[in-house]
Amino acid sequence: MKAEIIAVGSELLTPARIDTNSLFITERLNEIGIEVTSKVVVGDNRVTLHAILAEALARSELVVTTGGLGPTDDDVTRDVAADVLNLSFDTDERILQRIRARFESRGLRMPDINLRQAQVPRGSVAIDNPNGTAPGLWIEHGHGILLLLPGPPREMKGMFDAVVRERLLPRAGSRRIYRRVLRVTGRTESHTEETVGPAYARWAQGPGAISTTILAAHGQIELHLTAQGSDVESVRTALDAAAAEAQQLLGLDLYSVDGSTLEHVVGALLRKNGYRIAVAESCTGGLLASRLTDVPGSSDYVERGLVAYSNVAKEDWLGVPATMIAEHGAVSEPVAIAMARGIRDRARVDVGVGVTGIAGPGGGSDRKPVGTVVVAVARSGRSESDVRVRTSRFPGDRALIKSQASQAALDMVRRWLLETP
Amino acid sequence: MKAEIIAVGSELLTPARIDTNSLFITERLNEIGIEVTSKVVVGDNRVTLHAILAEALARSELVVTTGGLGPTDDDVTRDVAADVLNLSFDTDERILQRIRARFESRGLRMPDINLRQAQVPRGSVAIDNPNGTAPGLWIEHGHGILLLLPGPPREMKGMFDAVVRERLLPRAGSRRIYRRVLRVTGRTESHTEETVGPAYARWAQGPGAISTTILAAHGQIELHLTAQGSDVESVRTALDAAAAEAQQLLGLDLYSVDGSTLEHVVGALLRKNGYRIAVAESCTGGLLASRLTDVPGSSDYVERGLVAYSNVAKEDWLGVPATMIAEHGAVSEPVAIAMARGIRDRARVDVGVGVTGIAGPGGGSDRKPVGTVVVAVARSGRSESDVRVRTSRFPGDRALIKSQASQAALDMVRRWLLETP
Repeated sequence: MKAEIIAVGSELLTPARIDTNSLFITERLNEIGIEVTSKVVVGDNRVTLHAILAEALARSELVVTTGGLGPTDDDVTRDVAADVLNLSFDTDERILQRIRARFESRGLRMPDINLRQAQVPRGSVAIDNPNGTAPGLWIEHGHGILLLLPGPPREMKGMFDAVVRERLLPRAGSRRIYRRVLRVTGRTESHTEETVGPAYARWAQGPGAISTTILAAHGQIELHLTAQGSDVESVRTALDAAAAEAQQLLGLDLYSVDGSTLEHVVGALLRKNGYRIAVAESCTGGLLASRLTDVPGSSDYVERGLVAYSNVAKEDWLGVPATMIAEHGAVSEPVAIAMARGIRDRARVDVGVGVTGIAGPGGGSDRKPVGTVVVAVARSGRSESDVRVRTSRFPGDRALIKSQASQAALDMVRRWLLETP
Repeated sequence: MKAEIIAVGSELLTPARIDTNSLFITERLNEIGIEVTSKVVVGDNRVTLHAILAEALARSELVVTTGGLGPTDDDVTRDVAADVLNLSFDTDERILQRIRARFESRGLRMPDINLRQAQVPRGSVAIDNPNGTAPGLWIEHGHGILLLLPGPPREMKGMFDAVVRERLLPRAGSRRIYRRVLRVTGRTESHTEETVGPAYARWAQGPGAISTTILAAHGQIELHLTAQGSDVESVRTALDAAAAEAQQLLGLDLYSVDGSTLEHVVGALLRKNGYRIAVAESCTGGLLASRLTDVPGSSDYVERGLVAYSNVAKEDWLGVPATMIAEHGAVSEPVAIAMARGIRDRARVDVGVGVTGIAGPGGGSDRKPVGTVVVAVARSGRSESDVRVRTSRFPGDRALIKSQASQAALDMVRRWLLETP
């Protein structure tokens, strides 16, 4: 089965917005063996949407739209779809009650405009939306299936996983597409390619016909392996073997073979060793703590974090001597080390991290330009040295420097815990 | 003039890749008044591309494709375009020599497959590619212009800015497109629409023919105003008037009329009043501090942040009594207030914020389910009450709850500073 995806929304035709829903839908369709042959973005415009939807319905067995199911005048998908397929509308009382109840549970009156969302093209099946008011619609027509999903990602995803996947499965056939995401840090795209590249052709000719794509973004490299086949076991075995080979080639630089994030990997290492962590950050401004605490259950091992933006905060709460800051500057290895040891000792944890740097755009100098970042990690109860420190210089703007600095800090913890737990 | 963009490349139909070329092209076209009515991504497939290209050419005066101009078998754009328009090929000797020279300058022989790139559909104009081998093609046909650009962003962008913009300008007319983003918090999409909606039609009929799109995501609403016209001044005046009217209708709920983020708005308010801020967060885990410090120059007013994940951290560094936590629970109004006052007093700042809540997925109870968040703001040197506190319940997963909680905290600071500076 082949599918087309149509994202509806004028905002998606501006330079500032991008349609990301189609990535999720493509992934889910691929998983059940449905190939996506084209993706369209179209504005909230009845005429253009009518033309594009009619063409897609004539061409493809499955057409999935996202967006334009809201209650307002510029939400046109429901109307246009009914128009293209010549369907009239009925009011679905069950949906109407759900929408009304949703507003009432928040102590609100349902605005009249939401009535539209309970209008259902005759013969279609409404799909409950646990995360919003707009129901999805499953419409079977002469040549195939038209599926209307809401635009907000949380609503669309919830609906897809709860209902749509199940309904599509029997139509999808037995071939499946499988993907594996490997994540690499500490080397460039070219160096990763030089090391792993020679294996690509072999993987492509083996079982699963694995194709490999390399992607670089924000201080990390990803290798995406895509395999196809109808025998799950042999495809999985081929992907496992390829991932194991990449692991051998890349060593510690490969930190994830299942797409998990660096904060998940670090969290799992801390949990496994029964360690607790506390962080003292300056240039990352809370991003390091925020990433660590993005992991469910992280309260088990994250004790505290300090965003020590002022020098007073570094002195007060970390015991970094004012004379040290005056002598070496706030962005220096001695200060990063003192921050890491300070937070470790005051929070009484096993691992303390100190991050200081210049995120810019201001504050740089010839000797310490914008992008200069010092990361220190201090551990407790060790016979050898209790601290590691490293100075880096990251390219990019403020957001990118914050992101790379937090990545470097997490990675330094990961490598040390792997080398000597 | 209206345009459609078609991105060609099977890799753009995988879950990991996104077409970003179209954002650049949209921006450049909008700048000269050309509206983009749809964007398509299609794989390296002759049949599908033929159908989609034929439809686009019949519908739109300008069609821009990117990708598929390379020398290999799966680069099909040039062939399909000539086929759709019934054009035969000529070899362009000048292009052939450029490509050959490009290889020779690196000491390489031009592979035979690159001959294809010098094949030019009869009647078309080749556009030099200073950053690669594939020339662009400008093809005028019965109903308009077809423009074929290469896929690599550096090649496409270089070509667009050096040649394409100049060639399009005389066709584009004198009309330009202008955008304004208004941001709203503290009300739902429907309630925003009910309040502002009645003005849409008037704006659409006034100067600039302003069209309005409403967007909802992560606890905030955006209104995108798009105006068109040939007289910059009158369009700007119309957008200013519409923004002012929205401001009057929405009051304090409208926090930005120029697209700036809530952390920028709060930062500007703090700076204007000469205030410094410090935050103590639990469930947001550093996200609140990270957002505040995303603003360049925020070190002027952000003194410190504490991620008080453990109760010990709340006692140690904020002076929240253990008995208070035992009696009311860590997620409670007394504790949030004590956190806000604690960080304000210890950091000696004008504004202290305390955030505590349950981000989930674990830790919820019947009385305090996942999503329960308490925000307190404490100010110094005030004759009336020094503190405000509010309990909310946010929907969604861990990431969404963190995001909405940080938004609520920033918004509470903003409203208080606006009401009584």
